[in-house]
Amino acid sequence: MHFTVIMRILGILMMLFSLTMVPPMVVSVIYQDGQVNFFLEAFVLILIIGFLVWLPVRNKQQELRVRDGFLITVMFWVTLSLSGAIPLYVSDNPDMRFVDAYFESLSGLTTTGATVITGIDALPKSILWYRQQLQWFGGMGIIVLAVAVLPMLGIGGMQLYRAEAPGPVKDSKLTPRITETAKALWYIYLTLTVVCAVCYWLAGMDWFDAISHSFSTVAIGGFSTHDESIAYFENHWVELVAIIFMILSGVNYALHFAVIRSRNLIVYFRDPEFKFYAGLLVAVSLFTVASLYFTKTYSLNESITLGVFEVVSIATTTGFATADFAHWPLTLPFLLFVIAFVGGCAGSTGGGMKVIRVLLIYKQGIREVKRLIHPNAVIPVKLGKKPVPDRVVEAVWGFFSAYMFMFVFMLIGLLATGLDQVTAWSAVGACINNLGPGLGEVAYHYGDLNDVAKWILCFAMLLGRLEVFTLLILFTPAFWRR
Amino acid sequence: MHFTVIMRILGILMMLFSLTMVPPMVVSVIYQDGQVNFFLEAFVLILIIGFLVWLPVRNKQQELRVRDGFLITVMFWVTLSLSGAIPLYVSDNPDMRFVDAYFESLSGLTTTGATVITGIDALPKSILWYRQQLQWFGGMGIIVLAVAVLPMLGIGGMQLYRAEAPGPVKDSKLTPRITETAKALWYIYLTLTVVCAVCYWLAGMDWFDAISHSFSTVAIGGFSTHDESIAYFENHWVELVAIIFMILSGVNYALHFAVIRSRNLIVYFRDPEFKFYAGLLVAVSLFTVASLYFTKTYSLNESITLGVFEVVSIATTTGFATADFAHWPLTLPFLLFVIAFVGGCAGSTGGGMKVIRVLLIYKQGIREVKRLIHPNAVIPVKLGKKPVPDRVVEAVWGFFSAYMFMFVFMLIGLLATGLDQVTAWSAVGACINNLGPGLGEVAYHYGDLNDVAKWILCFAMLLGRLEVFTLLILFTPAFWRR
Ligand SMILES: [K+]
Ligand SMILES: [K+]
Repeated sequence: MHFTVIMRILGILMMLFSLTMVPPMVVSVIYQDGQVNFFLEAFVLILIIGFLVWLPVRNKQQELRVRDGFLITVMFWVTLSLSGAIPLYVSDNPDMRFVDAYFESLSGLTTTGATVITGIDALPKSILWYRQQLQWFGGMGIIVLAVAVLPMLGIGGMQLYRAEAPGPVKDSKLTPRITETAKALWYIYLTLTVVCAVCYWLAGMDWFDAISHSFSTVAIGGFSTHDESIAYFENHWVELVAIIFMILSGVNYALHFAVIRSRNLIVYFRDPEFKFYAGLLVAVSLFTVASLYFTKTYSLNESITLGVFEVVSIATTTGFATADFAHWPLTLPFLLFVIAFVGGCAGSTGGGMKVIRVLLIYKQGIREVKRLIHPNAVIPVKLGKKPVPDRVVEAVWGFFSAYMFMFVFMLIGLLATGLDQVTAWSAVGACINNLGPGLGEVAYHYGDLNDVAKWILCFAMLLGRLEVFTLLILFTPAFWRR
Repeated sequence: MHFTVIMRILGILMMLFSLTMVPPMVVSVIYQDGQVNFFLEAFVLILIIGFLVWLPVRNKQQELRVRDGFLITVMFWVTLSLSGAIPLYVSDNPDMRFVDAYFESLSGLTTTGATVITGIDALPKSILWYRQQLQWFGGMGIIVLAVAVLPMLGIGGMQLYRAEAPGPVKDSKLTPRITETAKALWYIYLTLTVVCAVCYWLAGMDWFDAISHSFSTVAIGGFSTHDESIAYFENHWVELVAIIFMILSGVNYALHFAVIRSRNLIVYFRDPEFKFYAGLLVAVSLFTVASLYFTKTYSLNESITLGVFEVVSIATTTGFATADFAHWPLTLPFLLFVIAFVGGCAGSTGGGMKVIRVLLIYKQGIREVKRLIHPNAVIPVKLGKKPVPDRVVEAVWGFFSAYMFMFVFMLIGLLATGLDQVTAWSAVGACINNLGPGLGEVAYHYGDLNDVAKWILCFAMLLGRLEVFTLLILFTPAFWRR
């Protein structure tokens, strides 16, 4: 392992991250909310620590190997989330303990959107801005992670998306080098953000809310500047904008890239993952709207507006709310939660297991049935018209069972801290899927949980965001050998 | 499909099954409980229906193909469970509706042991006997299913246990023909039953309870002649006998066969599945006893006796009770329930996903981690020292995801009927794993559930017992084509 090079990178990362304290300082000055000194404090602190980490190893230059990628990816997120917690911790409003500040910071950066804060409307504007901004920067990190890093590491079948590998997005021929890839996709991300903010403003938000919510929408984050989330605005245009941009942000950014380059919207519908994603959203929306209407929960009008919004919000793992879906009748809360396990497309800012993996598992299940009927036939698993290598299918299985195993493992941990079953399973689900809101006691916020539970859920958020194996592998002796 | 031949077999099966009404009739006469006419009625009814099914196709002789095996296996269990419901339905004590009689019959035959009856102590002796006997005959069917039929059909990786396939139990060289295999293993089953009954009697049960409980112990069934289950006897010797025979019955019968033939107990410990099974029981027992003791739930003495008994009972999926484990502190009820998903060894009368599959999934998970660290290495999954064919590993994955998918699917169904989350998930878990008792409202019995929920749970029991694919495949158009 090239520890010194990794330290150098993390030092630079912290120094760069310290600059993200500047926009909240500007906001604080504009709104005169008295937080400017706290952000200045955090700025100096992070800059100095980053500098001190970087200084002794500043001349270390070594080519990093793939194996270093696991450690650097994990350390990247741990360093950022620790740094991000600093302003929340030093501020006097909200007055947070360290565990809460860290939970909020990690929840922001992983775009989970679970919050431990109540009384969000009463927070200083600069703190509100900062929370939203955490999600936006988190989203930038996730795109690089999902489109460049995980395929390179080969996590859970994501080698399928290696630029040189055969696969559904081969057409997009991403420039193999991470920086080039990142630049191209960040440009799309930035454009989406700007368009989203303008649309929110046109729909009736003020500029502050429009920009803030565009950050957390495009990042599939779910943080809001209001306790009531999107319901606060009581505005169907705002909801429509949110729905459109949540759906767009749940799509593989490499696919957006391919569409833009080919200037042909049909390219979306040639992608098997996109088709499955769109089909699932439509099917679950129809079912939900029908259920809400026929159980007389809402009028037809409300069933459509509230139903579709919540389905898109939960299925893409955004976590915005216009209705109290946790108390919808029958099986709907549970059903929506299960759909969140599917999550967004690979290469998007969404969470969950990713649509492509669920699609591959489904196809493999079909193959097993065919094999039982025709025991001697050779039946490949195909995506579009291309067969998927067995190696990839095996990796997806490995991912699925590790995901389930860790889910149950952390669930047992939460139960052991004394939570009830519904709260415990939905909290783990909401965090590992980077969704945000849960059911039971965590339907609105996570503030009342005990500290051990909060730490377990921090682990869950990180585990989900790093697609399980990137983090788990660091706990194996084999990784550290040699 | 050879429908006429299948009809002939089912007709014969019913006529044979009608004979199982004779022992309860004898019991009824001995104890003068007034049920003899009901059993006689059932006997005649089943015999006549069986005869009428058999008569028109009695001369049809055709070689059955593997594909017929799926249909015949499912029809075998459906026919038996319908026939088995008849005496319970016609009897006046208990006075059961059809859905309840069928639930009880299927629960008996699949050795699930979930009951819809309350006031078991007050039932006529012949009915009590009949319930226990259902489990015992169910166990006989399961052994054939598990050791001969499923390997032949290749369900969920069970081709591993084909007599001619390489695998851990190759040593046992089972006579390939089903009848020979069945005879050899039934002999072991019968011997275990007799020894178990004698031990129960020596431990202090009366003969009726000793035989009755030997039936449901060896079948991993869990039915009892008392509402309080094993706790009724307040006898540690009885509990010890139950523990020993539950553990033995959770072992692959082909492995018992190999041990008997080699006259060498070491053969058990050469089997990777047995080692994992034994290790898991020991580890979970230690954890449970420690948890019970340190949470001050029981004294040390009670923690050991109650803890070990419940762990063995739940982990082997028997479902006997000496304590109200559903209300144990913290995470224990949930943990034990998760262990029930692992279940017994393949080729045993136990339920769950089977130890060998969980072991293979675990090994495949380890392989994925190794592959991430060494992307270019060829790493086989091994059992003992033999590599497992990729085909088998893939089938196990398919099994796992189909199991999880059907679990969630039926859970959504139960929630839609209005059950609370804990009751719903534990009921599906208890039924698909053929365990029996659940948590929440089904901690003691299933009588209070609505009818739709009962039918869904019947499906769950059958699905679990037929290892998902045998039943699911009948719902695919491809199966019926040609
Ligand atoms: K989210
Ligand atoms: K059972």
